[in-house]
Amino acid sequence: LVGLVMGSDSDFAVMSAAAQTLRDFGVAHEVQVVSAHRTPEKMLDYGRSAQSRGLKVIIAGAGGAAHLPGMLAAMTTLPVVGVPVPLGLLDGLDSLLSIVQMPAGVPVATVSIGGAKNAALIAIKILATSDDTLRQRLEDYSVQLADLVEQKNRDLQTRL
Amino acid sequence: LVGLVMGSDSDFAVMSAAAQTLRDFGVAHEVQVVSAHRTPEKMLDYGRSAQSRGLKVIIAGAGGAAHLPGMLAAMTTLPVVGVPVPLGLLDGLDSLLSIVQMPAGVPVATVSIGGAKNAALIAIKILATSDDTLRQRLEDYSVQLADLVEQKNRDLQTRL
Amino acid sequence: LVGLVMGSDSDFAVMSAAAQTLRDFGVAHEVQVVSAHRTPEKMLDYGRSAQSRGLKVIIAGAGGAAHLPGMLAAMTTLPVVGVPVPLGLLDGLDSLLSIVQMPAGVPVATVSIGGAKNAALIAIKILATSDDTLRQRLEDYSVQLADLVEQKNRDLQTRL
Amino acid sequence: LVGLVMGSDSDFAVMSAAAQTLRDFGVAHEVQVVSAHRTPEKMLDYGRSAQSRGLKVIIAGAGGAAHLPGMLAAMTTLPVVGVPVPLGLLDGLDSLLSIVQMPAGVPVATVSIGGAKNAALIAIKILATSDDTLRQRLEDYSVQLADLVEQKNRDLQTRL
Amino acid sequence: LVGLVMGSDSDFAVMSAAAQTLRDFGVAHEVQVVSAHRTPEKMLDYGRSAQSRGLKVIIAGAGGAAHLPGMLAAMTTLPVVGVPVPLGLLDGLDSLLSIVQMPAGVPVATVSIGGAKNAALIAIKILATSDDTLRQRLEDYSVQLADLVEQKNRDLQTRL
Amino acid sequence: LVGLVMGSDSDFAVMSAAAQTLRDFGVAHEVQVVSAHRTPEKMLDYGRSAQSRGLKVIIAGAGGAAHLPGMLAAMTTLPVVGVPVPLGLLDGLDSLLSIVQMPAGVPVATVSIGGAKNAALIAIKILATSDDTLRQRLEDYSVQLADLVEQKNRDLQTRL
Amino acid sequence: LVGLVMGSDSDFAVMSAAAQTLRDFGVAHEVQVVSAHRTPEKMLDYGRSAQSRGLKVIIAGAGGAAHLPGMLAAMTTLPVVGVPVPLGLLDGLDSLLSIVQMPAGVPVATVSIGGAKNAALIAIKILATSDDTLRQRLEDYSVQLADLVEQKNRDLQTRL
Amino acid sequence: LVGLVMGSDSDFAVMSAAAQTLRDFGVAHEVQVVSAHRTPEKMLDYGRSAQSRGLKVIIAGAGGAAHLPGMLAAMTTLPVVGVPVPLGLLDGLDSLLSIVQMPAGVPVATVSIGGAKNAALIAIKILATSDDTLRQRLEDYSVQLADLVEQKNRDLQTRL
Repeated sequence: LVGLVMGSDSDFAVMSAAAQTLRDFGVAHEVQVVSAHRTPEKMLDYGRSAQSRGLKVIIAGAGGAAHLPGMLAAMTTLPVVGVPVPLGLLDGLDSLLSIVQMPAGVPVATVSIGGAKNAALIAIKILATSDDTLRQRLEDYSVQLADLVEQKNRDLQTRL
Repeated sequence: LVGLVMGSDSDFAVMSAAAQTLRDFGVAHEVQVVSAHRTPEKMLDYGRSAQSRGLKVIIAGAGGAAHLPGMLAAMTTLPVVGVPVPLGLLDGLDSLLSIVQMPAGVPVATVSIGGAKNAALIAIKILATSDDTLRQRLEDYSVQLADLVEQKNRDLQTRL
Repeated sequence: LVGLVMGSDSDFAVMSAAAQTLRDFGVAHEVQVVSAHRTPEKMLDYGRSAQSRGLKVIIAGAGGAAHLPGMLAAMTTLPVVGVPVPLGLLDGLDSLLSIVQMPAGVPVATVSIGGAKNAALIAIKILATSDDTLRQRLEDYSVQLADLVEQKNRDLQTRL
Repeated sequence: LVGLVMGSDSDFAVMSAAAQTLRDFGVAHEVQVVSAHRTPEKMLDYGRSAQSRGLKVIIAGAGGAAHLPGMLAAMTTLPVVGVPVPLGLLDGLDSLLSIVQMPAGVPVATVSIGGAKNAALIAIKILATSDDTLRQRLEDYSVQLADLVEQKNRDLQTRL
Repeated sequence: LVGLVMGSDSDFAVMSAAAQTLRDFGVAHEVQVVSAHRTPEKMLDYGRSAQSRGLKVIIAGAGGAAHLPGMLAAMTTLPVVGVPVPLGLLDGLDSLLSIVQMPAGVPVATVSIGGAKNAALIAIKILATSDDTLRQRLEDYSVQLADLVEQKNRDLQTRL
Repeated sequence: LVGLVMGSDSDFAVMSAAAQTLRDFGVAHEVQVVSAHRTPEKMLDYGRSAQSRGLKVIIAGAGGAAHLPGMLAAMTTLPVVGVPVPLGLLDGLDSLLSIVQMPAGVPVATVSIGGAKNAALIAIKILATSDDTLRQRLEDYSVQLADLVEQKNRDLQTRL
Repeated sequence: LVGLVMGSDSDFAVMSAAAQTLRDFGVAHEVQVVSAHRTPEKMLDYGRSAQSRGLKVIIAGAGGAAHLPGMLAAMTTLPVVGVPVPLGLLDGLDSLLSIVQMPAGVPVATVSIGGAKNAALIAIKILATSDDTLRQRLEDYSVQLADLVEQKNRDLQTRL
Repeated sequence: LVGLVMGSDSDFAVMSAAAQTLRDFGVAHEVQVVSAHRTPEKMLDYGRSAQSRGLKVIIAGAGGAAHLPGMLAAMTTLPVVGVPVPLGLLDGLDSLLSIVQMPAGVPVATVSIGGAKNAALIAIKILATSDDTLRQRLEDYSVQLADLVEQKNRDLQTRL
């Protein structure tokens, strides 16, 4: 259901959090290294065939002059979620601007710098618009997040 | 199906492009001014009740310390699309960072600074994951975009 | 008298300096983990009940799309002091802009990135506007700061 | 009760909003042009004598290498609220950083770039910590803000 | 010899300076609107066929999430010169970073924000590496630049 | 054929990637430390004599107020490729702007921050405009890049 | 005594304030358009001959990749004062970084973006280290600045 | 002759390079920790008395909201050289803007972030405008810099 792609295998250090979250929610997905610049033909085929292969959402992570999310968005009408991967310099500001500042007509749904987990959650929220089981899991997840904060709060009290 | 909210009526100068695009695609929507800071209770109610009122996606635009998209995302499991509205200073960089840099667990799908049209397109793409009519309209739209570029290219040739 | 809250227990590494300073000045305070995004209802209750529970000032620290200080400021008429907590990327610039760029009507008194000690000092200065004992302690503190600089100056002379 | 100072009379275009808000809330105040760089002795006297002259809060606005708020904070134990005034270039980013990034021990409560109205509101919130009449006016103001948003929302509905 | 492409006809306001400079140096060129995002297939064909159609250099201008220069560089071994076109916000900083921060292996030779004339000059310098007539014209141009500065200097003297 | 210069021998940590790439492609080159600020006369001689000594392209790397690429571009009609070298602070943003923002008439073909390998590839692409052997090697290199991505993709699959 | 140079005659709109201030203080000076990039030989001669021609300080203004101040500093042991001239984009941030971030050994005394008047004042302060008449004029100027602030303060009081 | 001051003894890690350079050139100097914010009275006395105590130039280093150089410049007509000291966050960009963006009338001669050695060289260049011995030492230093580059170039050749 979800195609998870990244421009380089080194991006997997960041992007693995998206794969993990999809697994946690039981969402079928594939993971591919697809480079806009080094394998442009493959990237285009990936975008073109995504819907017919049964994908419903694409998550794409890239860094620097990060063109992968935007180019995939140009090749398909599926929603594309973009993850700005921070490289060694500029703290991912270049990645963020390269992904989020798309022209009118071809959007990328962008998450925070390095925010691969949140990209997975957006994909899940999208799928949940027509899947009540997933919707329920999101509700549960939200309760767990709150519980975790409460637990941490209690732990903090004991440390004061 | 789509809730379109903004923090101030002055944001409508930017956000009206989203309303227009939703109309163009024939997607039912409502428009509300909801301020995270000035009407927090209303904002929270809006988020809490969104799903039960039949909304499937929320588009939220805000500027400066733009908290509306993120707070709505905290109140609902629906996907929230955030539009950084540029104010008079900093060119919307503050709006962008306030919206996109959400913590793990509570994502906002962010578009470009001032990118209200693209926010509508993301909402439509989300709805199209379970609506083939909308999917087809997105395909048509994509062809129109390409045709428009070709037309502009021909016009440019005559001007050279 | 002072409510000291933060969005995540990991912020305590920064925010503990505020707790320490309040202790040093003998100012009663409480410490809570309250997340605008993960425990929004609790956050709102915290803001709504702050004054009636006897708080006079709130100090709130948060990082990234830091909405906690601004949302608390929306829920209470108490002064809210905001601490931009730096996360791993962008050096806290996102935190700073998310906190300081509040819209007209709902201010947050913002301190430097990571400036938790200064947040406590602002809270103390606020309380000192109607507490001469605290005012005197601030005067003493100011003398101590100057003495410390002088001591360091003398130490430096010996090292030259 | 409130001393409202600015580095140059040209800053009054921004800072007059603070004076207006203080008038609206019926808070006694004085307005002075005091330059950290051009009239340093006067600035220092202003800071030194502020408390004995009956001031409880100082609001200071300045632009560029904006040293006035920080230097006043160095001369008094009163709370100092800083307003970064945007000059013709850099959109006030230099003013913001020069004011907010104060060292530990000498804080300035900073508001948004050009946020003079919010500086006045922080001053009023500070005074309200020991003045129930002002507290009530802040509550009323908060209701008015919400009403205004609602009114604007209704107006927007008629325009759709 | 030179392919001059841009993502939108609105970019021609900036890019026309490149066309003019190529004309001034008598260098054959074509001008096309080719959008990486709206006409991706055409863009790819353009890159793939560039060399066989006799082009030696490509100049590509684009703004925002500017992917055109980098994607063309991915499709051809010809040198690609990128022009960051400034849009209405951020002064072209997003365009610059989207173009210049290419990954190792797929470079774009980037010029200043809005520097279309310089892009043409780089193309001419590239062609001149194997064309002595062009080399001579560059030498003459360089002398003219110096003469122009001298003329302006003399004019300034009369104004003092 | 290619002159590879840098402002300081400490830049060689970055610039050695350019030398390696030129070696890999079998392109004759020289390496020199030439400082615009510390050896200005040598720098000027280098630029003036570059063409007559048989160079066809110059690659210049520098950091901070990086004047070497631009000054060489002022002294020769050869194409100059600039590499912004990141120093210990600002992540090379100062280097980038100092190199890329050249005035009309005197361009520097700029690559990414630290992008020495890409600078070499631009030089090779320039030479390849009149050298079919090099052109073929660039084609081969491009295929290798794609193969490498595919290999990494396969490796990633085994790790999932 | 003072050489006032700029990279382009268009910089004179900013730099004329330096000429005016030097005139006001009765300091002999010359004004020249000298381009680091378009007239490099002249620029170098200017730097080399500056001291022997009797200059004691050089003021150099330039914008964008602003190399003029730094290159003059490389050619002479005279103090060079640099003025970052803002061009149409980036508000002079590129000019500032290109001028101020000089490497160890070759400093440029940099003033604010567009701060030509202050550059002249630094030149005058330098000359005043060995000229008591100039020193006295600086003292008088300082008094006038303070008087002007006081006058503006009185004017503001009447407007309140 | 030279007063070398810094806002905190921790700045000495950066500022010691200035002391070393002054020693290398045999220039008499004193070193003091003087804090604009923690010892404002001492700072003001330092500025007021600097000239009468025989100082000719002041070098001031400070970080963050770095007010020391500008405030000293407000208290004396001596030239003040400012060193932006980088703190743990923002890479000294806040320090730079707080020091360099001084208002018209009260300049600070600013060097690069962390550029203490260059601050000393500016002070020496200032003194050398009326001291031929120092002028000669600057000439010698300039030759040494060039020789050092040449030496490093030769070393690099052996490593290739």
